[in-house]
Amino acid sequence: MAVCTLNSSFLGFHQKSHQPPQQPPQQLVFLSGKRWGSSKRERHSSLSNTACVITCSAGGQQTVVIGLAADSGCGKSTFMRRLTSVFGGAAEPPKGGNPDSNTLISDTTTVICLDDYHSLDRTGRKEKGVTALDPKANDFDLMYEQVKALKNGVPVDKPIYNHVSGLLDPPELIKPPKILVIEGLHPMYDSRVRDLLDFSIYLDISNEVKFAWKIQRDMAERGHSLESIKASIEARKPDFDAYIDPQKQYADAVIEVLPTNLIPDDNEGKVLRVRLIMKEGVEFFNPVYLFDEGSTVSWIPCGRKLTCSYPGIKFSYGPESYYGHEVSVLEMDGQFDRLDELIYVESHLSNLSTKFYGEVTQQMLKHSEFPGSNNGTGFFQTVVGLKIRDLYEQISASRAKVPVEAAKA
Amino acid sequence: MAVCTLNSSFLGFHQKSHQPPQQPPQQLVFLSGKRWGSSKRERHSSLSNTACVITCSAGGQQTVVIGLAADSGCGKSTFMRRLTSVFGGAAEPPKGGNPDSNTLISDTTTVICLDDYHSLDRTGRKEKGVTALDPKANDFDLMYEQVKALKNGVPVDKPIYNHVSGLLDPPELIKPPKILVIEGLHPMYDSRVRDLLDFSIYLDISNEVKFAWKIQRDMAERGHSLESIKASIEARKPDFDAYIDPQKQYADAVIEVLPTNLIPDDNEGKVLRVRLIMKEGVEFFNPVYLFDEGSTVSWIPCGRKLTCSYPGIKFSYGPESYYGHEVSVLEMDGQFDRLDELIYVESHLSNLSTKFYGEVTQQMLKHSEFPGSNNGTGFFQTVVGLKIRDLYEQISASRAKVPVEAAKA
Repeated sequence: MAVCTLNSSFLGFHQKSHQPPQQPPQQLVFLSGKRWGSSKRERHSSLSNTACVITCSAGGQQTVVIGLAADSGCGKSTFMRRLTSVFGGAAEPPKGGNPDSNTLISDTTTVICLDDYHSLDRTGRKEKGVTALDPKANDFDLMYEQVKALKNGVPVDKPIYNHVSGLLDPPELIKPPKILVIEGLHPMYDSRVRDLLDFSIYLDISNEVKFAWKIQRDMAERGHSLESIKASIEARKPDFDAYIDPQKQYADAVIEVLPTNLIPDDNEGKVLRVRLIMKEGVEFFNPVYLFDEGSTVSWIPCGRKLTCSYPGIKFSYGPESYYGHEVSVLEMDGQFDRLDELIYVESHLSNLSTKFYGEVTQQMLKHSEFPGSNNGTGFFQTVVGLKIRDLYEQISASRAKVPVEAAKA
Repeated sequence: MAVCTLNSSFLGFHQKSHQPPQQPPQQLVFLSGKRWGSSKRERHSSLSNTACVITCSAGGQQTVVIGLAADSGCGKSTFMRRLTSVFGGAAEPPKGGNPDSNTLISDTTTVICLDDYHSLDRTGRKEKGVTALDPKANDFDLMYEQVKALKNGVPVDKPIYNHVSGLLDPPELIKPPKILVIEGLHPMYDSRVRDLLDFSIYLDISNEVKFAWKIQRDMAERGHSLESIKASIEARKPDFDAYIDPQKQYADAVIEVLPTNLIPDDNEGKVLRVRLIMKEGVEFFNPVYLFDEGSTVSWIPCGRKLTCSYPGIKFSYGPESYYGHEVSVLEMDGQFDRLDELIYVESHLSNLSTKFYGEVTQQMLKHSEFPGSNNGTGFFQTVVGLKIRDLYEQISASRAKVPVEAAKA
């Protein structure tokens, strides 16, 4: 194995403004380019079919890239705080930078918001009559190049879309983290970006729940009329259906949020039925299951050992087909009232990738003030966080083995 | 502890004909009569609240008495063969006796048919206009006295009702076995007999299934008309509802046989939904459960690991209330096609009281020609057989301890 150092500016990207390099020298590692087993694995390693490949890695470790897609205001930031917390750190905006930066950085993770790749600012979108959902308002070439650079251990100067002013601010330096999360409207829209993802998640809030939430917020808190809320949802729908929604077919995990089935004709959106749809056959990802892997199970834990208040809690689990993919679906309907319910449920699920008994419960309690902490949204976000930690550790371990194997070859 | 021997004829019962005693001398054991914990336990031991009690036991061991109630022709004999098989022996009629004896004897068990306690023979019933279901056609005093005698280790001369001739034949000698099963129409009708039972089972075949079975047998095989079958069922119903059906409220376990829910509007009675209703709080009986004791679970084992043919198999489990008693219900809808389905299901149930992995499956395979071997009737009959073996062993073990404890007191 040959290791050489080079300055990250060695690899030139068409970044709009380039800050002087402040990061430590990168390592250039020559690996025997034997083709690996699965295409998924190739995605992880960026190894191609050629005889010898050059990759650059930060501290000998390539960045793991996670994509998180969702509509605006669907709990992505809560999800990111839960994910970061699993790794033990708190996520904060870059120190001393633009106060309107959308980036969140912790010891392990860097979360970048894909709104930063808007090619059109608010005025530009208005002039051209396109929404932020429209791919025409976004620069996928730059998104691809910068995510690829970060994945390969090369820092980038990423633009900032200022949500307050609606303008594109000067870029900020992003160093390659251990885990890069790209969250926003289009992480899986462009096939080149999609292929860089080691794992992808889609937050799918059903129209009924979206509507109930908007009414809750916009009517009660902002004094909007029911008609104006309906109109704004309707106006957004065509672009959402055309550009955002289709991405869920590519997701390795989908969190689907629906109205409860426990209360007949419930439209309040307070009690939720949440489905965690997990793709089968994804390397380094073993779907969570209930009691018997691969069978169809329903479970009402409330009974002799656990007493739940109305309307109770119901879990379902089973194999399904989702956009032609084989998936396992874990569903939670209802909400937790007390700690003992949470730990009881956790103790009966398998493949949670916890490191100790009750870790999901501990994480949930730590952030009990976050939205969704008493229902399936918070529960499954925490579970996905643990699965991502596990995925990261497995990828790291498998990469640590590779140079040794390559040297032997 | 004082042990004295006495001849079993010491205890005089008004048996209609008394054979000279052929059994070994019985033991008379004086026990310290400290009142035990539960009424159930008292029933097992026949200990009363007095300071000193005399019990007689065969070889130091009291007979465990099991009651099995069901309508005629509802699979009792199959059930008995399954039960006997669990104990390792084959049940046969008494050797050298009346060829029309209804009794079945194995090393461990003796099964007596309660039809033998008919006080009216076929002609007598016709004359008085009563059915065999009517308590007036049965001698509960004698039933009580003889079951009590056997329970206390005293042989009896039990009458024989000859099903061929419809007459009462001369009695046969019944020696106290380790396990006495009294099966028939009224094992739980008389409260004195009921109180002698260490465990009771009710086989509850729903009217739809009974009807489908009768049509199958009486129309196809015996050429009866649909109208005559309907009429015979209707004629039997009032007495059945008045005297047989109410006994199920006393049963420790009920096996309920219903039409399948897997095939819409199925009336064929070929695919069955069978429910094993197990009373909670019965000493020496721990209900079987699926995955999580005391919660509500449904399970379709057919999936990624197990493939089942149409209409598949569905299990349900959960707490319920049955005639005011707290019960746990395990339900199996559908049928087994292959061995791997049977062992897969067995391996996911808990509290089966098996002695080795796959014992239920082994028992089912051993008697694969018995009716119901591919569905819940055979499965649950086998399970109940294992539970009775367990109950018997626990009762025996607890009794073995008593003299020691009594001597210490």
